[in-house]
Amino acid sequence: MSEKTAAIVVIGNEILTGKSQDKNASFLINELYQLGITLGRIVVIPDDPVDIAGSVRECAGRFDFVFTSGGIGPTHDDVTIEGIARAFDRKVVRNPELEALIRGYFGDGVDEVRLRMADAPQGAVLVWAEGELRWPILTVENVYVLPGVPELFRSKFAALRDRFRAQPFHTRTVFTMQDEFDIAEAMNQLAADHPRVIIGSYPSFTSGDYKVKITLESKDAGAVEVALSALLAVLEPSALVRTE
Amino acid sequence: MSEKTAAIVVIGNEILTGKSQDKNASFLINELYQLGITLGRIVVIPDDPVDIAGSVRECAGRFDFVFTSGGIGPTHDDVTIEGIARAFDRKVVRNPELEALIRGYFGDGVDEVRLRMADAPQGAVLVWAEGELRWPILTVENVYVLPGVPELFRSKFAALRDRFRAQPFHTRTVFTMQDEFDIAEAMNQLAADHPRVIIGSYPSFTSGDYKVKITLESKDAGAVEVALSALLAVLEPSALVRTE
Repeated sequence: MSEKTAAIVVIGNEILTGKSQDKNASFLINELYQLGITLGRIVVIPDDPVDIAGSVRECAGRFDFVFTSGGIGPTHDDVTIEGIARAFDRKVVRNPELEALIRGYFGDGVDEVRLRMADAPQGAVLVWAEGELRWPILTVENVYVLPGVPELFRSKFAALRDRFRAQPFHTRTVFTMQDEFDIAEAMNQLAADHPRVIIGSYPSFTSGDYKVKITLESKDAGAVEVALSALLAVLEPSALVRTE
Repeated sequence: MSEKTAAIVVIGNEILTGKSQDKNASFLINELYQLGITLGRIVVIPDDPVDIAGSVRECAGRFDFVFTSGGIGPTHDDVTIEGIARAFDRKVVRNPELEALIRGYFGDGVDEVRLRMADAPQGAVLVWAEGELRWPILTVENVYVLPGVPELFRSKFAALRDRFRAQPFHTRTVFTMQDEFDIAEAMNQLAADHPRVIIGSYPSFTSGDYKVKITLESKDAGAVEVALSALLAVLEPSALVRTE
């Protein structure tokens, strides 16, 4: 089964200093999961073109899709375009299509500051979502450049969403009152026996309801069910809390 | 002024798939900021020893302190120790001090699964917080290995906290109803004139209260106040909402 992968690069000093809480990566985590895309990495970095270039270059080489969040406004701390250009060893140039849009939108009010929003890495491709966005989404190779403002991030991603639809994940979850130490060996064997199923084991020390949450996940629903049966066969029935 | 830097490496498929929400990085962001430590990067990666090794090696080389979260239990998906060992080209060995603790704690109930918790990268150093923790914190060079369970992550970090105290950050914040495009040039000049002050500009399209939030930050409180005066001199007084 073909597996599509993604990374998220969140750009912004405000996240790293706690001035703003990230809302975009946490939104995209759930979107990508629902789409069946395997999220392989999230990186949060400062407004620094060298950092941005390094993270984008690495992620673009390793994952099918990269989504950046933030750093695309008109002020000195908006250096995402410069960082992405460096990641691909390209120049930043004025994009004629974006320039025409900005001139059309601002009319006589256009100035050099507003026109800076038309600067893009050479060879950037604009993605339009007709009827949904009045502004295109800038892409460079497999990198989708999204704004940091959460409302805009969401509306832009919503317009792109269907491009990324893949086979869905199937997940089952089992809760038990057994101690994780006492099931660890069985879990390790289960993981070895079911290589197509990703098995997670998460202890809780504060929930009175259960001691360990076990998750089984795969794109192959049948494989998940087979692993679930095998799991239930090795767990202590009297300690089983529930299966979801 | 000496500047101490840190990175956070969050390890866990459950975060990347949305099964659990990160609570540890978001907690540590605020702790580090209050301590005066510059957080330079957050990385979220899967339970994969190669990924862990790569991220830990890179962060340990670039930042003064690295905090890992997660992946240190007894099951197959707990591979943080192996990953950190690889990051420093060390073997995983049974740590005698940890082994003695585990044998003392479990008594006759000790078994190979429980003893696995005594495995650590060769040369790991245990940090004790007398009277606060009954279990030491494992460190390898500048890497602090913390558990993923949020309650444990917090209590362990709380015990370490005072080791990381640095000079505090000073921050002032200004809210204006001016459009970000109309203040961008002045902001860029301000940033160039006050290189010791980190200036952030954050537009809001949903708050009726303000259009742009401007933050001024430095370890030099005087420099922040000087930049604040310069900022207030260039903003339109009638559009000023408030200064914090």
